[in-house]
Amino acid sequence: VKQDTSENRELGRRERRRQETVEKLFASAMRLFSTKGYAATKVEDITEAADVGKGTFFNYFPSKRHVLGYFAGKQLSRVEHYVGVSREGDAETLELLEALARDLTRLPAKSPEMARTVVASFLGDADVREYVLAQILRGREMVAEIIARGQERGEVRRDMEAGELARIFQQSIFGTILMWSLSQKDPVERMLANSIEVLLSGLRGHDGQGRSGRGASRSGSERKQR
Amino acid sequence: VKQDTSENRELGRRERRRQETVEKLFASAMRLFSTKGYAATKVEDITEAADVGKGTFFNYFPSKRHVLGYFAGKQLSRVEHYVGVSREGDAETLELLEALARDLTRLPAKSPEMARTVVASFLGDADVREYVLAQILRGREMVAEIIARGQERGEVRRDMEAGELARIFQQSIFGTILMWSLSQKDPVERMLANSIEVLLSGLRGHDGQGRSGRGASRSGSERKQR
Repeated sequence: VKQDTSENRELGRRERRRQETVEKLFASAMRLFSTKGYAATKVEDITEAADVGKGTFFNYFPSKRHVLGYFAGKQLSRVEHYVGVSREGDAETLELLEALARDLTRLPAKSPEMARTVVASFLGDADVREYVLAQILRGREMVAEIIARGQERGEVRRDMEAGELARIFQQSIFGTILMWSLSQKDPVERMLANSIEVLLSGLRGHDGQGRSGRGASRSGSERKQR
Repeated sequence: VKQDTSENRELGRRERRRQETVEKLFASAMRLFSTKGYAATKVEDITEAADVGKGTFFNYFPSKRHVLGYFAGKQLSRVEHYVGVSREGDAETLELLEALARDLTRLPAKSPEMARTVVASFLGDADVREYVLAQILRGREMVAEIIARGQERGEVRRDMEAGELARIFQQSIFGTILMWSLSQKDPVERMLANSIEVLLSGLRGHDGQGRSGRGASRSGSERKQR
């Protein structure tokens, strides 16, 4: 049990303040990126909007680009958590992936502007793209580990590499958030629930006893899973 | 049989020339959007790059925004074709959707820059977004018609609305193209084939006899399809 000394309280307070500042800088940056655009936003604009000194920014982010990396980093730490749960071996893989998918949409689902901005910024800038892509690929490796475990346990289709299925998992989440951020006609929760449901059916694959008379099917899952 | 009179030949020539010009304008616009950005590109820049007079642009596009609409329009006409085939009633629905998905990726898969640009432009500009979104929704209605027919025939899962499944179909294609446009580590054909395979398994749903012991599953498809 952690002792609640005044020293601990002081550390906790400092950590909370750090966290508040970084969140404030992140939120201000996202707002500016979506109004002025990523390229036109200066670090001073961000610090001014967040009401902190300019130098403060560089205590948290080595460069403007790292603000987008912060977003990706937050997502990565969620994936890490689920890899840990998967390693313990008690959880059903598809249920784990379902919970992970919901968790990963929580942050971008807070604001459609933010979701659009993050994607538009890294599509439009080669440096940002390279940086964010590296984090996407790190995330994919972790998801692939979860999926590979599911394949060993017979919970996930085996006719496709775990890395490929992990890419499709990521795509499905990006796609849902992107589509939602465009229209918001439906609540993100409903859109997400349906997307996940279809994704999980697809990841599970099927046992070749499907009702559809696809006959000489080109479907890999039917061909290879028997 | 169409008569090959000189008048027909003349019409054909004129139509081909129109088509060449519009394609040239479209390609130049896309190149400029990806280098200068959508907002900073002027119509004169486009016509200069395409080596045509400025007025020529407006013979083909009412405004700059309509260049992006041209892309969406091309895609829509592909979907229309498949709706026609579906109405004839001979084709298996999932095979039809597979062919449609391949067809829809053909154009964006020509250039990762173009794919990124189209998406970044309409994410970043509210007017363009509204315009392109309308076309996405028209496309969705058509895909939903194909899917509803598949549901009637028992080829597509019935536990979700056709419109929702159509959205998920669109998302899956956007997601694949977007992910490919970021890294191009793998050929788009392979990425697409695997994405489609997982998507189709997901759309087909399953018969509740899955191998996985999900037990008290929260999966709608298992719960509702019995």
